[in-house]
Amino acid sequence: MKLQAALDVKTLDDALRLMEIIHDYVDIAEIGTPLVVAEGVRAVKVMKEKYPNIDVLCDAKIMDGGRSIARMAFAAGADIVTVLGITNDSTVRGAVEAAREYGKKVCADTIGIRADDLAKRTRELEEMGVDYIAVHTAHDMLDCIATPIEALKVIKDNISKKDTYSVISGGIKPEAMPEIKEVGPDVVIVGSGICKSDDPLKVVQELKAIMNN
Amino acid sequence: MKLQAALDVKTLDDALRLMEIIHDYVDIAEIGTPLVVAEGVRAVKVMKEKYPNIDVLCDAKIMDGGRSIARMAFAAGADIVTVLGITNDSTVRGAVEAAREYGKKVCADTIGIRADDLAKRTRELEEMGVDYIAVHTAHDMLDCIATPIEALKVIKDNISKKDTYSVISGGIKPEAMPEIKEVGPDVVIVGSGICKSDDPLKVVQELKAIMNN
Repeated sequence: MKLQAALDVKTLDDALRLMEIIHDYVDIAEIGTPLVVAEGVRAVKVMKEKYPNIDVLCDAKIMDGGRSIARMAFAAGADIVTVLGITNDSTVRGAVEAAREYGKKVCADTIGIRADDLAKRTRELEEMGVDYIAVHTAHDMLDCIATPIEALKVIKDNISKKDTYSVISGGIKPEAMPEIKEVGPDVVIVGSGICKSDDPLKVVQELKAIMNN
Repeated sequence: MKLQAALDVKTLDDALRLMEIIHDYVDIAEIGTPLVVAEGVRAVKVMKEKYPNIDVLCDAKIMDGGRSIARMAFAAGADIVTVLGITNDSTVRGAVEAAREYGKKVCADTIGIRADDLAKRTRELEEMGVDYIAVHTAHDMLDCIATPIEALKVIKDNISKKDTYSVISGGIKPEAMPEIKEVGPDVVIVGSGICKSDDPLKVVQELKAIMNN
């Protein structure tokens, strides 16, 4: 089980300051969407240069133009780029093609996919070659699964390849980890739980202690 | 009827070079998603400083974190920011709140909304205070309307306020303009028709001639 720290801050300097504190416990450093909008893929480039041994994810949330936007993220050094699972197949396939070209990976964010579509869409995303399939619940979104853990179960139940990984995110704090661990996602994303904490080091240490226990 | 030029290029320099040629005929300059990912909101800032009298749209395609991402775009000088209409209401409302705070506007991109949801979602988006509602067809997306003009008709039929504007995009070339004009969108977005042309000036001149005729 890997820890992905979502660096949901608005400047690269803030992201670097946070990583300076927590990097020993982070498996995947996420350049969050606000940071992508603020600084572009330069944020990916600088982070990867500073932490070449940590995977860097570019949360571009691609909705169209899959191939060209994914290529930009990978060219900047991203190990993983996100695509919105709800979008059209050619965009998903384009992002996957770019990943294969660079020897990198694609994570599909399932935000907004309806509850009764999630199982089928998970199988389709895997079939198209997506490497990670992520729960991302939008609490007020009609017809979506409201509980991250329920959505994670659906995703896990519909993944069949050993190298397709399940990911959970959405307001996760250390106290939720035991329940999450029982379901067993491959990656746990923690954002505000780290970024808004007065003691981010303690938070990542607690998270990893539970994950490794 | 306004012309929005989607600057779907990958560097700010390319966007500036293109605008240098076409700016006399452009009502709204769109900083396309690839350019947002490439350079962040700096691209918005530089474009607005160079063309203070042309509206600049930041095609951030916001899927979550509506308020904070929209504020970044407006702070950089954007007149309009895009949100994905398919996303949750609190994200749409957040982007609209940011727009009101800055005296700016929100455009909802309806890409991915199912055909049988488009009328209802258009009314909801208008009710939440979205200023522009845009057709953006994804040709291979199941259950979506495949023809931009058909989607535009649905949007126009479901807009009721005089200051909610309809927008059409998706592979538009000058020869399609007469048919589009009959339906009467408030804004026509042209991207590759301009960016991939050998003579972008001629294209915008032709488009405006038909629009103003």
